[in-house]
Amino acid sequence: MSIGIGVIGLGNMGTDHTRTLHRFVSGATVTRVADINSERAAEITAQVPSATAASDGLELIAAPDVDAVVIASHDSTHAPLTIACLEAGKPVLCEKPLAPTVKDAADVVAHERGRGLISLGFMRRFDPGYAELKAAIEKPLVVHTRSRGVQSCPEVDSAMSITGSAIHDFDTIAWLLDSPVAEVSWHAGRQSPRVTGLQDPQVMLVRTEDGVLSTVETYLNARYGYDIRCEVVCETRAVRLAEPARTVVDADLRSAMQYAADWRPRFADAYRLQLQVWVDSVSGGLPSPLAGAHDGLVASAVADAAIRSMQSGGEFVPVETPAKALGSM
Amino acid sequence: MSIGIGVIGLGNMGTDHTRTLHRFVSGATVTRVADINSERAAEITAQVPSATAASDGLELIAAPDVDAVVIASHDSTHAPLTIACLEAGKPVLCEKPLAPTVKDAADVVAHERGRGLISLGFMRRFDPGYAELKAAIEKPLVVHTRSRGVQSCPEVDSAMSITGSAIHDFDTIAWLLDSPVAEVSWHAGRQSPRVTGLQDPQVMLVRTEDGVLSTVETYLNARYGYDIRCEVVCETRAVRLAEPARTVVDADLRSAMQYAADWRPRFADAYRLQLQVWVDSVSGGLPSPLAGAHDGLVASAVADAAIRSMQSGGEFVPVETPAKALGSM
Amino acid sequence: MSIGIGVIGLGNMGTDHTRTLHRFVSGATVTRVADINSERAAEITAQVPSATAASDGLELIAAPDVDAVVIASHDSTHAPLTIACLEAGKPVLCEKPLAPTVKDAADVVAHERGRGLISLGFMRRFDPGYAELKAAIEKPLVVHTRSRGVQSCPEVDSAMSITGSAIHDFDTIAWLLDSPVAEVSWHAGRQSPRVTGLQDPQVMLVRTEDGVLSTVETYLNARYGYDIRCEVVCETRAVRLAEPARTVVDADLRSAMQYAADWRPRFADAYRLQLQVWVDSVSGGLPSPLAGAHDGLVASAVADAAIRSMQSGGEFVPVETPAKALGSM
Amino acid sequence: MSIGIGVIGLGNMGTDHTRTLHRFVSGATVTRVADINSERAAEITAQVPSATAASDGLELIAAPDVDAVVIASHDSTHAPLTIACLEAGKPVLCEKPLAPTVKDAADVVAHERGRGLISLGFMRRFDPGYAELKAAIEKPLVVHTRSRGVQSCPEVDSAMSITGSAIHDFDTIAWLLDSPVAEVSWHAGRQSPRVTGLQDPQVMLVRTEDGVLSTVETYLNARYGYDIRCEVVCETRAVRLAEPARTVVDADLRSAMQYAADWRPRFADAYRLQLQVWVDSVSGGLPSPLAGAHDGLVASAVADAAIRSMQSGGEFVPVETPAKALGSM
Repeated sequence: MSIGIGVIGLGNMGTDHTRTLHRFVSGATVTRVADINSERAAEITAQVPSATAASDGLELIAAPDVDAVVIASHDSTHAPLTIACLEAGKPVLCEKPLAPTVKDAADVVAHERGRGLISLGFMRRFDPGYAELKAAIEKPLVVHTRSRGVQSCPEVDSAMSITGSAIHDFDTIAWLLDSPVAEVSWHAGRQSPRVTGLQDPQVMLVRTEDGVLSTVETYLNARYGYDIRCEVVCETRAVRLAEPARTVVDADLRSAMQYAADWRPRFADAYRLQLQVWVDSVSGGLPSPLAGAHDGLVASAVADAAIRSMQSGGEFVPVETPAKALGSM
Repeated sequence: MSIGIGVIGLGNMGTDHTRTLHRFVSGATVTRVADINSERAAEITAQVPSATAASDGLELIAAPDVDAVVIASHDSTHAPLTIACLEAGKPVLCEKPLAPTVKDAADVVAHERGRGLISLGFMRRFDPGYAELKAAIEKPLVVHTRSRGVQSCPEVDSAMSITGSAIHDFDTIAWLLDSPVAEVSWHAGRQSPRVTGLQDPQVMLVRTEDGVLSTVETYLNARYGYDIRCEVVCETRAVRLAEPARTVVDADLRSAMQYAADWRPRFADAYRLQLQVWVDSVSGGLPSPLAGAHDGLVASAVADAAIRSMQSGGEFVPVETPAKALGSM
Repeated sequence: MSIGIGVIGLGNMGTDHTRTLHRFVSGATVTRVADINSERAAEITAQVPSATAASDGLELIAAPDVDAVVIASHDSTHAPLTIACLEAGKPVLCEKPLAPTVKDAADVVAHERGRGLISLGFMRRFDPGYAELKAAIEKPLVVHTRSRGVQSCPEVDSAMSITGSAIHDFDTIAWLLDSPVAEVSWHAGRQSPRVTGLQDPQVMLVRTEDGVLSTVETYLNARYGYDIRCEVVCETRAVRLAEPARTVVDADLRSAMQYAADWRPRFADAYRLQLQVWVDSVSGGLPSPLAGAHDGLVASAVADAAIRSMQSGGEFVPVETPAKALGSM
Repeated sequence: MSIGIGVIGLGNMGTDHTRTLHRFVSGATVTRVADINSERAAEITAQVPSATAASDGLELIAAPDVDAVVIASHDSTHAPLTIACLEAGKPVLCEKPLAPTVKDAADVVAHERGRGLISLGFMRRFDPGYAELKAAIEKPLVVHTRSRGVQSCPEVDSAMSITGSAIHDFDTIAWLLDSPVAEVSWHAGRQSPRVTGLQDPQVMLVRTEDGVLSTVETYLNARYGYDIRCEVVCETRAVRLAEPARTVVDADLRSAMQYAADWRPRFADAYRLQLQVWVDSVSGGLPSPLAGAHDGLVASAVADAAIRSMQSGGEFVPVETPAKALGSM
């Protein structure tokens, strides 16, 4: 028995999801795909014979052979498409962010009304390294995270570095510690002279409600590789992610392990496992173990606080928690 | 579209295959299982609702909802069950060894008559680490392999250490180098005093036809962990498997990475990918990219030469190659 | 030709210096030692036959067979003993801190009047790892340092954690970057419940004049080991200290490297090399390549700013630079 | 109090010893140097003011300000110069080999008559990594050693690879295990096509009297770096040398540690400590803790057996032990 999945948006992320679902996920069939570029959709259906192209996201969501939906289209479309899924009563796995603003995210949460239909793509929670790290934590005191990439897209600005990259660390920290983020303080590293239009690197201090202090470094143009690190300093131990390399090459006076050039090889397993677990929950009619709409709202609220700290000179800014956000609606 | 798989033998290995097929492989449904212990079969069908129990392997092979067969039953059953699959015209993935003797293995190869129906479970070929290692080899000169386990089963003797464990290294070396093993020389390490009924550890020298010399250490009772290493020394570089740990734990004056206690976590990915690639080839009607019957025959011939070297005091013993073996039929 | 060295203070540090000078430094003879506990001095002279005990530090400094002085006595004695060396015209290697307050340190600097007689024991500058790290830096943007110990002495409070431990990182950062620290901001990690009388761990943000932002974590009761880390994130590369272990032990399902229990094994080479370079400069009549009085004053000023930030709730506090300090005299 | 050291031979090794003695060893003064090239000797005395040039080794040995002698001249001179030191009654630290043949080495041992005047430069025994390795061994079963270099000198042939490089591993294995080598078997790796006049790499099996089996790989033209490895597989643990790098550089999609280009940085500490311990023993009138003449004889006998195995097609050749060698005199 297989459930039918529709994938909206066929950029890097949506294409990767489509291929992973098609080739590596048990119990799922990609039945529909949609992209604003119809040629792109045709390319994909040529490679994934089970899928046909829908003319747009709404048609895809309505299609009878679509049991559940993956949204990987432009960020600005996430909220309306997610709401369309809710209205169709179909489970949806939406890439982050859930919505462009905290208020919009809160609207989506309100629409969901606790039905648990929305899953958010915070895939690090399914990375085997992070899972092992979480299991090894005992009485945490301090966390250090590093998210470094090779090169950012030209349009990315300082705020997008936070909402697109640091947001993963915000979710990860709260998930690792089982404690929501209470406040954030933003600081500039020395500006990389190769980078324009963006403060890069950035360093944030994050205080969770349990009192743990985290340092979050985001450096999108680190150039040397896609490098994700996390260390949790506990009372009597420290735990960290190992370098995820599979081989060591001795050459040219160096003993070297390879970095990925982007997120795909680094998090391939996390994306696969996240999709598998999601498909299992959909076909079993069970609650999704993925991050949900509320987690997406919370992470956006943390990002919002970080941006306000950036704008106000680095002071600690309290996270306007979902409860408040919802209350203000 | 999903193909129906029958799994014969529900020990550790067969159970693991069944679960992996059921939970993590795209395009496959476990439709039948069989075990000499019918209670065991009932336990599994309770967990895998798509499967029903067959009364024995032959019934399973004949079942109309079985498109392809996995054989993980006792070693002594591999050859006859594989031949039954050949006679039914169904693709089969047989755990190693293909047969208890080189002659029996050659018989199976002869039965197959080049139809490519048989795949052999040399799963290391699908381990992402080994795949990366193979890709990085340039002009190899020397290979070093280490296969260490925590504890061997009570019935394992010195020859079974070779046919059950070292055989993986024999296949891996030939596959990594694209060159068959020409001769083997066997040597005893100092005997571990904790071990009886078995020379442990063992060290073998393996010469492939390309002239590369490999050292193969097999130590089934290394106690400290399940530890598989491989290094290929090339003309101007050396390449080796990295430690496959995902986290580092600092505690008790040590910075430590965890070893697996057995093969399951270490090669979970390799088994999953091997099954996925096999299922893909079966459903696509394509040649299997897995090791085949001929590879199984060759590896058994190398194991045979190693055992003869052990019996004769350590001299190099030429591998009686499949051609000769087949010629002698 | 050998110079005569007097060592004042025979606690852990002074004893270590005495033994290192005696056993491993070329061109130096320990001729005198002094400790407030005369039995302690007798123990040491029994082990170091070249040395005789002086009744106190001032007598030692005045002794004709003392060409140069090492001060490792109680922190409160550093300034007056250093000034006594200046008055005797003898080169002195003083353990940090140079003085208990910035003002006192500035007084010592004023006494020195640029003669270069004072060296400060910021031995990390001579650690081969740090030296290699410094050489590999290219266009630094962000620095991360971690100074963790097993257990702090009972009398240590939050300020002493800064003046005794973090001060090494303050000096190291400025030395690595060739840029003085401009401002510091202090933050509490979640308090380790095993620790009383001291905020532990602490996290500081340090901004140097070149714009580089550093995170400094100090955790004196980390329990798991004495662990010193430093990473410099540059424009297109990141450089960090390797784990300084010499062996890997595979046992008990772990692949493990050993941590030192305290600073002695970790920095034995740094202390030895620092003493050797200092002795060479003294016997050659050359300027000392060690950190000097001014560096000690600067580091104390940074520590002072960190303490004021701690007292004022974490805001960035500008370092009152030596120039200002001297100017205010 | 300082002892006077004379250094004979000022090639790479002798120059390194001279500098180390001069700059980093406590209690020693280089008083004389000698080289067949008098210009070379003049260069060194210009850098080491305490030293004057002797016209040849014998004059140096006879000089009244020479208390002990280091021999680092051409291999062919080791035996006669060592004997000259014995006749002068002066302690001597001779680089390996002690003599060109086992018989000649046995002659030197016979001359020494147990006076303990001769030390052999098997400096790995003083490498902190090897020392830590030795301390961690418990019930060893198998040893693996790798000695790889960047490029061999043009004149080196297959036998010289054994007597010049593998001999270090022969000594190390016997020292680590506290058990002499009983037999050796020699095997060719696939020949590196870049190398002529020399089988490179080579692989040897070494059996010590305690029954432990060692694999010894020697690859002088590995090109990628100077890389010395050693692993001891024990009953319930395995212990190995860690990579001796001090920093990790992340750049160009790689996380890399640096290899030394030759032995000098890799074993600088071992050479320094060996010289210090030797100087201490000479000035204290104590037995030398270094490898002695007998160890040199034994290691040469192992090398001899390896060469005979090479010449006879790889069979195990028993080591003609010193007792036998001495008996044959």
